[in-house]
Amino acid sequence: MRLALVVEYDGTNYHGFQYQKGVPSIQEGLEKALRRFTGETIRVHGAGRTDAGVHALGQVVSFDTESSHTVDTFVRALNFHLPDDIAVKSGRAVDDGFDPRRHALSRTYRYTIIRSRTRSPIRRRTAHVVGEPLDVDAMMNATEKLIGRHDFARFAGPIAHGGTGRELFGARLRNDGDCLVFEFEGNAFLPQQVRRMVGAVVDVGRGRMTLGQFERMIEGDEAAVAHTAPPQGLCLVGVRYDEHMDGSEK
Amino acid sequence: MRLALVVEYDGTNYHGFQYQKGVPSIQEGLEKALRRFTGETIRVHGAGRTDAGVHALGQVVSFDTESSHTVDTFVRALNFHLPDDIAVKSGRAVDDGFDPRRHALSRTYRYTIIRSRTRSPIRRRTAHVVGEPLDVDAMMNATEKLIGRHDFARFAGPIAHGGTGRELFGARLRNDGDCLVFEFEGNAFLPQQVRRMVGAVVDVGRGRMTLGQFERMIEGDEAAVAHTAPPQGLCLVGVRYDEHMDGSEK
Repeated sequence: MRLALVVEYDGTNYHGFQYQKGVPSIQEGLEKALRRFTGETIRVHGAGRTDAGVHALGQVVSFDTESSHTVDTFVRALNFHLPDDIAVKSGRAVDDGFDPRRHALSRTYRYTIIRSRTRSPIRRRTAHVVGEPLDVDAMMNATEKLIGRHDFARFAGPIAHGGTGRELFGARLRNDGDCLVFEFEGNAFLPQQVRRMVGAVVDVGRGRMTLGQFERMIEGDEAAVAHTAPPQGLCLVGVRYDEHMDGSEK
Repeated sequence: MRLALVVEYDGTNYHGFQYQKGVPSIQEGLEKALRRFTGETIRVHGAGRTDAGVHALGQVVSFDTESSHTVDTFVRALNFHLPDDIAVKSGRAVDDGFDPRRHALSRTYRYTIIRSRTRSPIRRRTAHVVGEPLDVDAMMNATEKLIGRHDFARFAGPIAHGGTGRELFGARLRNDGDCLVFEFEGNAFLPQQVRRMVGAVVDVGRGRMTLGQFERMIEGDEAAVAHTAPPQGLCLVGVRYDEHMDGSEK
């Protein structure tokens, strides 16, 4: 049978979701726990490849197993075998054809910035500290410009192949205490796209980039490259599906 | 001169605030950073002795130094020398007689519970997960009963000497997303008092203790001992002073 799981992880100690020889990855952690529980060698497929140091509240993975345990037993047993920075939040039996990456309707990412002149020990793994004064209105304006279908080539890290057109269904920036919280929902994202969008918006807030330059970056016209926001502020909040399963977390 | 600092720390990797031979403590971390910066051997005094694994957003410490650097330089230099799980948020020159413990008017502690049937990797260091159904109204009722001057002997860990009467100026419990957040402000707290109060309130929420038993515990009449909530959910939010300095964080 094929199972899909919603997985939360603290990505601090991992070199990203995807398996890489010789370094810890979320995928490897899940596959190890599955092997311990089922005795099978199981390949796990994820909805999105989060980078090193990036977190997830609602990553969705799927895999095939010969095991006849119930889904509830799988969730409990995996949480027993997984390290404390990875946990299965829920699980569900899905169609044999289910593919968590291809069938995803949208992904939602959150990026958290702390506005502080000093480091924040308690939130150092989950937020990025920005000490300079920021023009938050300009940042909110810039963030809204990202909504829609654009060529996000200027916001992409190294790309192996394929086009750079992507659609953002939603993009917003809100104040939350001493934090600025970005939320992006899109059909799919280019490598490093969220961190580069956040980096560019922060550059607008610092006055290092004008709103005009930012808009030209979205059109692919502006060669000027913004900084890439560091990974610890980023979290894959959830993945949305149609008929097969809904992996989103509130 | 005497300086007072507001200090934030992630207490996960420390055996509490106070120096203990052979194991890491917050006090030792601060004293090491002071020695590196000033060359002096400096003894640091704190407002409260947080236990192993307990955090602080606004611990207040003071110390004497022969150094003539400005307070801003002290803050920057200490943040350079401190490990990434301890940071100085602000500093202030204070009277020579200032004592962060004796002069504190009140301390505010926060305790965070996540209501979830599964672990939370991202918040595992800063919150306690409770999976059973909870009667939150009963818990809110119980929390309010704690306000005022009481003999908190039944809520105290091992006590070396002194009385067990303490005054709670405020005690409240609120819902925040999937969390329950306690906030307590009091003149002073007995060892483990907050974690034992939270443990007892959670026992009320689970139906393991009646509100009547809880009230008798406050009166010192009830021998029944509640569980002690684990340290990672607890945070010293701030310490309030009168004329000397205000170490509270919002």
